[in-house]
Amino acid sequence: MTRHLSTTDRTTIRRSSARARSDRSDLYASLDAGLICHLGLLIDGSPRVLPTGYGRRGDTLYLHGSTGARSLREAAGGVEVCVTVTHLDGIVYARSLFHHSVNYRSAMIHGQAREVVDADEKLQALRVITDQLAPGSWEHARQPNKRELAATAVLAVDLAEAAVKIRDGGPNDDTEDIEAGKAWAGVLPLRMHWGAPEPSTDLPAGFAVPPHVGERTYPA
Amino acid sequence: MTRHLSTTDRTTIRRSSARARSDRSDLYASLDAGLICHLGLLIDGSPRVLPTGYGRRGDTLYLHGSTGARSLREAAGGVEVCVTVTHLDGIVYARSLFHHSVNYRSAMIHGQAREVVDADEKLQALRVITDQLAPGSWEHARQPNKRELAATAVLAVDLAEAAVKIRDGGPNDDTEDIEAGKAWAGVLPLRMHWGAPEPSTDLPAGFAVPPHVGERTYPA
Repeated sequence: MTRHLSTTDRTTIRRSSARARSDRSDLYASLDAGLICHLGLLIDGSPRVLPTGYGRRGDTLYLHGSTGARSLREAAGGVEVCVTVTHLDGIVYARSLFHHSVNYRSAMIHGQAREVVDADEKLQALRVITDQLAPGSWEHARQPNKRELAATAVLAVDLAEAAVKIRDGGPNDDTEDIEAGKAWAGVLPLRMHWGAPEPSTDLPAGFAVPPHVGERTYPA
Repeated sequence: MTRHLSTTDRTTIRRSSARARSDRSDLYASLDAGLICHLGLLIDGSPRVLPTGYGRRGDTLYLHGSTGARSLREAAGGVEVCVTVTHLDGIVYARSLFHHSVNYRSAMIHGQAREVVDADEKLQALRVITDQLAPGSWEHARQPNKRELAATAVLAVDLAEAAVKIRDGGPNDDTEDIEAGKAWAGVLPLRMHWGAPEPSTDLPAGFAVPPHVGERTYPA
Protein backbone atom coordinates (compact mmCIF):
# COMPACT_ATOMS: atom_id res chain seq x y z
CA MET A 1 0.00 0.00 0.00
CA THR A 2 1.31 3.38 -0.87
CA ARG A 3 1.00 6.45 1.23
CA HIS A 4 -0.61 8.69 -1.33
CA LEU A 5 -3.68 8.61 -3.45
CA SER A 6 -2.74 7.50 -6.91
CA THR A 7 -4.84 8.55 -9.82
CA THR A 8 -3.28 6.00 -12.13
CA ASP A 9 -3.30 2.82 -10.10
CA ARG A 10 -6.68 1.35 -9.42
CA THR A 11 -5.29 -1.28 -7.11
CA THR A 12 -3.66 1.31 -4.93
CA ILE A 13 -6.73 3.40 -4.59
CA ARG A 14 -8.99 0.49 -3.65
CA ARG A 15 -6.81 -1.24 -1.12
CA SER A 16 -6.30 1.62 1.26
CA SER A 17 -7.46 1.25 4.79
CA ALA A 18 -6.64 2.31 8.30
CA ARG A 19 -3.89 0.30 9.86
CA ALA A 20 -1.37 0.41 12.63
CA ARG A 21 2.22 0.97 11.58
CA SER A 22 5.13 -0.44 13.45
CA ASP A 23 7.71 1.58 11.54
CA ARG A 24 9.31 4.07 13.92
CA SER A 25 10.02 6.46 11.06
CA ASP A 26 6.26 6.80 10.44
CA LEU A 27 5.76 7.53 14.14
CA TYR A 28 8.52 10.11 14.21
CA ALA A 29 7.29 11.73 10.99
CA SER A 30 3.73 12.08 12.30
CA LEU A 31 4.92 13.53 15.59
CA ASP A 32 7.45 15.87 13.99
CA ALA A 33 4.89 17.26 11.54
CA GLY A 34 2.43 18.25 14.28
CA LEU A 35 1.94 21.47 16.19
CA ILE A 36 -0.22 20.45 19.13
CA CYS A 37 -1.13 17.19 20.82
CA HIS A 38 -4.12 16.10 22.86
CA LEU A 39 -3.09 14.98 26.35
CA GLY A 40 -5.43 12.56 28.08
CA LEU A 41 -5.29 11.88 31.80
CA LEU A 42 -7.51 11.31 34.80
CA ILE A 43 -8.42 14.21 37.07
CA ASP A 44 -10.50 13.25 40.10
CA GLY A 45 -11.23 9.97 38.40
CA SER A 46 -12.62 11.59 35.25
CA PRO A 47 -10.96 11.56 31.84
CA ARG A 48 -9.73 14.89 30.49
CA VAL A 49 -8.43 15.66 27.03
CA LEU A 50 -6.36 18.83 26.77
CA PRO A 51 -4.66 20.40 23.77
CA THR A 52 -1.04 21.31 24.46
CA GLY A 53 2.29 22.03 22.81
CA TYR A 54 4.96 19.37 22.61
CA GLY A 55 8.25 18.41 21.07
CA ARG A 56 10.21 15.21 20.48
CA ARG A 57 13.84 14.41 21.16
CA GLY A 58 14.82 10.89 20.27
CA ASP A 59 12.37 8.60 22.05
CA THR A 60 11.14 11.19 24.52
CA LEU A 61 8.13 13.42 24.06
CA TYR A 62 8.15 16.67 26.03
CA LEU A 63 5.05 18.62 26.98
CA HIS A 64 4.89 21.91 28.79
CA GLY A 65 2.47 24.19 30.50
CA SER A 66 1.98 26.49 33.42
CA THR A 67 2.75 25.12 36.87
CA GLY A 68 -0.57 26.72 37.79
CA ALA A 69 -2.50 24.36 35.53
CA ARG A 70 -4.03 21.55 37.52
CA SER A 71 -3.79 19.12 34.61
CA LEU A 72 -0.03 19.58 34.40
CA ARG A 73 0.39 19.20 38.15
CA GLU A 74 -1.63 15.98 38.05
CA ALA A 75 0.33 14.64 35.12
CA ALA A 76 3.62 15.56 36.77
CA GLY A 77 2.74 13.24 39.64
CA GLY A 78 3.66 10.25 37.51
CA VAL A 79 0.13 9.38 36.44
CA GLU A 80 -0.65 7.43 33.34
CA VAL A 81 -1.26 9.58 30.28
CA CYS A 82 -2.19 9.12 26.64
CA VAL A 83 -0.88 11.62 24.12
CA THR A 84 -2.39 11.74 20.64
CA VAL A 85 -1.22 13.78 17.65
CA THR A 86 -3.63 13.70 14.71
CA HIS A 87 -3.32 15.03 11.18
CA LEU A 88 -6.54 15.08 9.19
CA ASP A 89 -5.43 14.74 5.58
CA GLY A 90 -8.71 14.59 3.69
CA ILE A 91 -12.30 13.46 3.45
CA VAL A 92 -12.93 10.19 1.62
CA TYR A 93 -16.17 10.31 -0.37
CA ALA A 94 -17.54 6.87 -1.20
CA ARG A 95 -20.57 5.77 -3.25
CA SER A 96 -22.16 4.62 0.00
CA LEU A 97 -22.41 6.62 3.21
CA PHE A 98 -21.13 3.56 5.05
CA HIS A 99 -17.78 3.69 3.27
CA HIS A 100 -17.28 7.41 3.76
CA SER A 101 -14.10 7.89 5.73
CA VAL A 102 -11.22 10.25 6.44
CA ASN A 103 -7.56 10.07 5.56
CA TYR A 104 -5.44 10.72 8.60
CA ARG A 105 -2.24 10.05 10.49
CA SER A 106 -2.61 9.60 14.21
CA ALA A 107 0.24 8.91 16.62
CA MET A 108 -0.72 7.65 20.06
CA ILE A 109 1.61 7.35 23.03
CA HIS A 110 0.89 5.67 26.34
CA GLY A 111 3.09 6.09 29.36
CA GLN A 112 3.68 7.59 32.72
CA ALA A 113 4.47 11.27 32.67
CA ARG A 114 7.66 12.27 34.43
CA GLU A 115 8.24 15.85 35.55
CA VAL A 116 11.50 17.21 34.22
CA VAL A 117 13.33 18.77 37.17
CA ASP A 118 16.97 18.66 36.04
CA ALA A 119 17.83 22.20 34.95
CA ASP A 120 19.79 21.16 31.87
CA GLU A 121 17.16 18.70 30.65
CA LYS A 122 14.41 21.24 31.30
CA LEU A 123 16.13 23.89 29.19
CA GLN A 124 16.81 21.36 26.46
CA ALA A 125 13.18 20.25 26.57
CA LEU A 126 11.94 23.82 26.28
CA ARG A 127 14.15 24.26 23.26
CA VAL A 128 12.72 21.11 21.68
CA ILE A 129 9.16 22.31 22.33
CA THR A 130 9.98 25.78 20.96
CA ASP A 131 11.59 24.31 17.85
CA GLN A 132 8.40 22.33 17.21
CA LEU A 133 5.94 25.18 17.62
CA ALA A 134 8.02 28.17 16.57
CA PRO A 135 11.28 27.12 14.91
CA GLY A 136 13.82 29.93 14.95
CA SER A 137 12.37 31.60 18.02
CA TRP A 138 14.89 30.01 20.37
CA GLU A 139 17.64 31.97 18.61
CA HIS A 140 15.54 35.13 18.09
CA ALA A 141 13.55 35.78 21.26
CA ARG A 142 14.63 36.47 24.84
CA GLN A 143 15.60 33.34 26.77
CA PRO A 144 13.58 32.37 29.85
CA ASN A 145 14.80 33.78 33.17
CA LYS A 146 14.75 31.96 36.51
CA ARG A 147 11.29 33.18 37.47
CA GLU A 148 9.86 32.13 34.10
CA LEU A 149 11.55 28.74 34.26
CA ALA A 150 10.08 28.18 37.72
CA ALA A 151 6.61 29.01 36.41
CA THR A 152 6.91 26.48 33.59
CA ALA A 153 6.28 22.79 34.09
CA VAL A 154 7.81 20.34 31.65
CA LEU A 155 6.72 16.72 31.39
CA ALA A 156 8.45 13.85 29.65
CA VAL A 157 6.75 10.77 28.24
CA ASP A 158 8.75 7.86 26.87
CA LEU A 159 7.90 6.69 23.35
CA ALA A 160 8.31 3.02 24.28
CA GLU A 161 4.56 2.44 24.01
CA ALA A 162 3.73 4.38 20.89
CA ALA A 163 2.05 3.57 17.62
CA VAL A 164 0.84 5.41 14.56
CA LYS A 165 -2.25 4.67 12.50
CA ILE A 166 -2.43 5.91 8.95
CA ARG A 167 -5.34 5.84 6.50
CA ASP A 168 -4.72 7.08 3.02
CA GLY A 169 -5.89 6.46 -0.52
CA GLY A 170 -9.39 6.32 -1.97
CA PRO A 171 -12.70 4.82 -0.90
CA ASN A 172 -13.27 1.09 -0.45
CA ASP A 173 -16.65 0.88 -2.14
CA ASP A 174 -18.68 -2.28 -2.63
CA THR A 175 -18.65 -3.71 -6.15
CA GLU A 176 -22.41 -3.22 -6.59
CA ASP A 177 -22.11 0.46 -5.77
CA ILE A 178 -19.24 0.93 -8.19
CA GLU A 179 -21.19 -0.80 -10.93
CA ALA A 180 -24.34 1.22 -10.18
CA GLY A 181 -22.27 4.32 -11.01
CA LYS A 182 -24.68 6.69 -9.30
CA ALA A 183 -22.41 8.58 -6.89
CA TRP A 184 -19.08 10.36 -7.10
CA ALA A 185 -16.15 8.87 -5.23
CA GLY A 186 -12.74 10.21 -4.36
CA VAL A 187 -10.81 12.27 -1.88
CA LEU A 188 -11.04 15.94 -0.96
CA PRO A 189 -7.62 16.73 0.52
CA LEU A 190 -7.36 19.05 3.50
CA ARG A 191 -4.36 21.37 3.46
CA MET A 192 -2.88 23.72 6.02
CA HIS A 193 -0.77 26.73 5.33
CA TRP A 194 0.49 29.83 7.09
CA GLY A 195 -1.27 33.11 6.44
CA ALA A 196 0.51 36.45 6.19
CA PRO A 197 2.28 37.41 9.44
CA GLU A 198 0.31 39.94 11.54
CA PRO A 199 2.85 42.17 13.31
CA SER A 200 2.05 43.36 16.81
CA THR A 201 0.97 47.00 16.70
CA ASP A 202 3.46 47.94 19.41
CA LEU A 203 6.45 47.05 17.22
CA PRO A 204 8.64 49.99 16.14
CA ALA A 205 7.79 51.18 12.64
CA GLY A 206 9.67 49.30 9.94
CA PHE A 207 10.54 46.28 12.11
CA ALA A 208 10.97 43.62 9.45
CA VAL A 209 9.32 40.22 9.76
CA PRO A 210 12.22 37.80 10.41
CA PRO A 211 12.70 34.88 7.98
CA HIS A 212 11.85 32.21 10.58
CA VAL A 213 8.34 33.71 10.67
CA GLY A 214 7.87 35.18 7.21
CA GLU A 215 9.32 32.23 5.31
CA ARG A 216 7.96 29.49 7.52
CA THR A 217 6.64 26.48 5.61
CA TYR A 218 4.02 23.94 6.64
CA PRO A 219 4.89 21.51 8.02
CA ALA A 220 8.12 22.94 9.43
CA MET B 1 -11.68 41.65 24.14
CA THR B 2 -12.29 41.07 20.50
CA ARG B 3 -12.07 37.78 18.72
CA HIS B 4 -9.62 38.78 16.06
CA LEU B 5 -6.19 40.25 15.95
CA SER B 6 -6.45 43.92 15.27
CA THR B 7 -3.58 45.74 13.66
CA THR B 8 -5.01 49.12 14.53
CA ASP B 9 -5.94 48.81 18.18
CA ARG B 10 -3.04 48.42 20.52
CA THR B 11 -5.30 47.78 23.48
CA THR B 12 -6.96 44.91 21.74
CA ILE B 13 -3.77 43.25 20.73
CA ARG B 14 -2.22 43.41 24.18
CA ARG B 15 -5.12 42.27 26.25
CA SER B 16 -5.75 38.95 24.61
CA SER B 17 -5.43 35.82 26.67
CA ALA B 18 -6.84 32.36 27.03
CA ARG B 19 -10.13 32.26 28.86
CA ALA B 20 -13.16 30.12 29.34
CA ARG B 21 -16.30 31.30 27.60
CA SER B 22 -19.74 30.69 28.96
CA ASP B 23 -21.51 31.84 25.82
CA ARG B 24 -23.22 28.85 24.24
CA SER B 25 -22.94 30.40 20.80
CA ASP B 26 -19.12 30.27 21.08
CA LEU B 27 -19.36 26.61 22.07
CA TYR B 28 -21.68 25.77 19.19
CA ALA B 29 -19.55 27.72 16.72
CA SER B 30 -16.36 25.92 17.74
CA LEU B 31 -18.04 22.52 17.55
CA ASP B 32 -19.79 23.24 14.27
CA ALA B 33 -16.57 24.42 12.60
CA GLY B 34 -14.68 21.22 13.42
CA LEU B 35 -14.18 18.02 11.48
CA ILE B 36 -12.90 15.57 14.06
CA CYS B 37 -12.86 15.43 17.84
CA HIS B 38 -10.60 13.68 20.31
CA LEU B 39 -12.51 11.23 22.49
CA GLY B 40 -11.00 10.47 25.89
CA LEU B 41 -12.05 7.51 27.99
CA LEU B 42 -10.67 4.79 30.22
CA ILE B 43 -9.90 1.36 28.80
CA ASP B 44 -8.71 -1.20 31.34
CA GLY B 45 -8.08 1.68 33.72
CA SER B 46 -5.81 3.55 31.29
CA PRO B 47 -6.65 6.81 29.55
CA ARG B 48 -7.06 6.68 25.77
CA VAL B 49 -7.43 9.58 23.39
CA LEU B 50 -8.91 8.69 20.01
CA PRO B 51 -9.67 10.87 17.00
CA THR B 52 -13.18 10.36 15.68
CA GLY B 53 -15.92 11.96 13.62
CA TYR B 54 -18.83 13.70 15.29
CA GLY B 55 -21.80 15.97 14.76
CA ARG B 56 -23.99 18.20 16.91
CA ARG B 57 -27.77 18.44 17.07
CA GLY B 58 -29.01 20.96 19.60
CA ASP B 59 -27.36 20.07 22.89
CA THR B 60 -26.38 16.55 21.90
CA LEU B 61 -23.05 15.53 20.42
CA TYR B 62 -23.06 12.36 18.36
CA LEU B 63 -20.01 10.19 17.71
CA HIS B 64 -19.80 7.10 15.61
CA GLY B 65 -17.54 4.22 14.84
CA SER B 66 -17.40 0.54 14.12
CA THR B 67 -19.12 -1.79 16.57
CA GLY B 68 -15.90 -3.78 16.29
CA ALA B 69 -13.86 -0.99 17.87
CA ARG B 70 -13.20 -1.70 21.51
CA SER B 71 -13.14 2.00 22.40
CA LEU B 72 -16.66 2.48 21.08
CA ARG B 73 -17.94 -0.60 22.87
CA GLU B 74 -16.44 0.66 26.12
CA ALA B 75 -17.85 4.13 25.65
CA ALA B 76 -21.27 2.70 24.78
CA GLY B 77 -21.37 1.09 28.20
CA GLY B 78 -22.19 4.45 29.75
CA VAL B 79 -18.68 5.28 30.88
CA GLU B 80 -17.50 8.78 31.49
CA VAL B 81 -15.93 10.45 28.48
CA CYS B 82 -14.28 13.73 27.60
CA VAL B 83 -14.62 15.02 24.05
CA THR B 84 -12.37 17.83 22.86
CA VAL B 85 -12.54 19.73 19.56
CA THR B 86 -9.58 22.03 18.98
CA HIS B 87 -8.89 24.60 16.27
CA LEU B 88 -5.33 25.88 16.13
CA ASP B 89 -5.64 29.38 14.69
CA GLY B 90 -2.08 30.64 14.77
CA ILE B 91 1.29 30.86 16.48
CA VAL B 92 1.83 33.85 18.76
CA TYR B 93 5.42 35.09 18.56
CA ALA B 94 6.43 37.18 21.56
CA ARG B 95 9.67 39.06 22.39
CA SER B 96 10.32 36.48 25.09
CA LEU B 97 10.11 32.72 24.70
CA PHE B 98 8.03 32.63 27.88
CA HIS B 99 5.22 34.62 26.27
CA HIS B 100 5.16 32.59 23.08
CA SER B 101 1.73 31.09 22.75
CA VAL B 102 -0.87 29.81 20.31
CA ASN B 103 -4.24 31.18 19.28
CA TYR B 104 -6.88 28.49 19.48
CA ARG B 105 -10.47 27.58 20.14
CA SER B 106 -11.02 24.45 22.15
CA ALA B 107 -14.41 23.02 23.11
CA MET B 108 -14.43 20.41 25.85
CA ILE B 109 -17.37 18.24 26.82
CA HIS B 110 -17.67 15.96 29.83
CA GLY B 111 -20.40 13.43 30.20
CA GLN B 112 -21.53 9.86 30.13
CA ALA B 113 -21.77 8.38 26.69
CA ARG B 114 -25.09 6.82 25.81
CA GLU B 115 -25.40 4.31 22.98
CA VAL B 116 -28.06 5.34 20.51
CA VAL B 117 -30.28 2.31 19.93
CA ASP B 118 -33.54 3.86 18.75
CA ALA B 119 -33.62 3.36 14.97
CA ASP B 120 -34.97 6.83 14.19
CA GLU B 121 -32.50 8.64 16.45
CA LYS B 122 -29.65 6.53 15.08
CA LEU B 123 -30.46 7.44 11.49
CA GLN B 124 -30.85 11.10 12.44
CA ALA B 125 -27.52 10.99 14.30
CA LEU B 126 -25.77 9.46 11.29
CA ARG B 127 -27.17 12.25 9.16
CA VAL B 128 -25.87 14.85 11.61
CA ILE B 129 -22.40 13.23 11.62
CA THR B 130 -22.40 13.00 7.82
CA ASP B 131 -23.45 16.64 7.47
CA GLN B 132 -20.52 17.64 9.68
CA LEU B 133 -17.83 15.66 7.87
CA ALA B 134 -19.20 15.53 4.33
CA PRO B 135 -22.12 17.93 3.85
CA GLY B 136 -24.18 17.00 0.81
CA SER B 137 -23.23 13.34 0.93
CA TRP B 138 -26.42 12.33 2.72
CA GLU B 139 -28.40 13.40 -0.35
CA HIS B 140 -25.81 12.15 -2.88
CA ALA B 141 -24.52 8.77 -1.69
CA ARG B 142 -26.28 5.47 -1.07
CA GLN B 143 -28.08 5.29 2.27
CA PRO B 144 -26.98 2.72 4.84
CA ASN B 145 -28.71 -0.66 4.69
CA LYS B 146 -29.66 -2.81 7.68
CA ARG B 147 -26.37 -4.68 7.78
CA GLU B 148 -24.38 -1.46 7.64
CA LEU B 149 -26.51 0.16 10.34
CA ALA B 150 -25.95 -2.85 12.58
CA ALA B 151 -22.20 -2.57 12.09
CA THR B 152 -22.20 1.11 13.08
CA ALA B 153 -22.22 2.21 16.70
CA VAL B 154 -23.48 5.68 17.52
CA LEU B 155 -22.87 7.38 20.84
CA ALA B 156 -24.55 10.45 22.27
CA VAL B 157 -23.03 12.84 24.79
CA ASP B 158 -25.05 15.63 26.35
CA LEU B 159 -23.61 19.15 26.12
CA ALA B 160 -24.73 20.02 29.67
CA GLU B 161 -21.13 20.00 30.89
CA ALA B 162 -19.36 21.76 28.09
CA ALA B 163 -17.13 24.79 27.82
CA VAL B 164 -15.01 26.48 25.21
CA LYS B 165 -11.67 28.20 25.71
CA ILE B 166 -10.53 30.76 23.20
CA ARG B 167 -7.19 32.53 22.89
CA ASP B 168 -6.83 35.17 20.23
CA GLY B 169 -4.99 38.41 19.58
CA GLY B 170 -1.33 39.25 19.90
CA PRO B 171 1.41 38.50 22.40
CA ASN B 172 1.33 39.70 26.01
CA ASP B 173 4.93 40.82 26.28
CA ASP B 174 6.53 42.36 29.34
CA THR B 175 7.11 46.12 29.13
CA GLU B 176 10.90 45.77 29.38
CA ASP B 177 10.94 43.43 26.39
CA ILE B 178 8.79 45.76 24.32
CA GLU B 179 11.05 48.69 25.17
CA ALA B 180 14.20 46.69 24.40
CA GLY B 181 12.83 46.32 20.86
CA LYS B 182 15.09 43.40 20.00
CA ALA B 183 12.66 40.76 18.82
CA TRP B 184 9.74 40.59 16.41
CA ALA B 185 6.28 40.03 17.82
CA GLY B 186 2.99 39.14 16.23
CA VAL B 187 0.86 36.29 15.00
CA LEU B 188 1.41 33.81 12.19
CA PRO B 189 -2.11 32.64 11.33
CA LEU B 190 -2.71 29.00 10.45
CA ARG B 191 -5.27 28.42 7.71
CA MET B 192 -6.95 25.32 6.38
CA HIS B 193 -8.40 24.88 2.96
CA TRP B 194 -9.56 22.12 0.67
CA GLY B 195 -7.27 20.97 -2.10
CA ALA B 196 -8.45 19.94 -5.56
CA PRO B 197 -10.76 16.88 -5.47
CA GLU B 198 -8.99 13.62 -6.41
CA PRO B 199 -11.52 11.42 -8.21
CA SER B 200 -11.38 7.69 -7.65
CA THR B 201 -9.80 5.99 -10.67
CA ASP B 202 -12.68 3.53 -10.94
CA LEU B 203 -15.20 6.28 -11.73
CA PRO B 204 -16.67 6.23 -15.25
CA ALA B 205 -14.90 8.65 -17.58
CA GLY B 206 -16.36 12.14 -17.41
CA PHE B 207 -18.11 11.71 -14.06
CA ALA B 208 -18.30 15.32 -12.89
CA VAL B 209 -17.23 16.34 -9.39
CA PRO B 210 -20.53 17.26 -7.65
CA PRO B 211 -20.83 20.78 -6.17
CA HIS B 212 -20.96 19.56 -2.55
CA VAL B 213 -17.39 18.32 -3.06
CA GLY B 214 -15.96 20.66 -5.68
CA GLU B 215 -17.35 23.85 -4.18
CA ARG B 216 -16.90 22.94 -0.53
CA THR B 217 -15.63 25.77 1.63
CA TYR B 218 -13.70 25.62 4.88
CA PRO B 219 -15.19 25.62 7.42
CA ALA B 220 -18.42 24.20 6.02
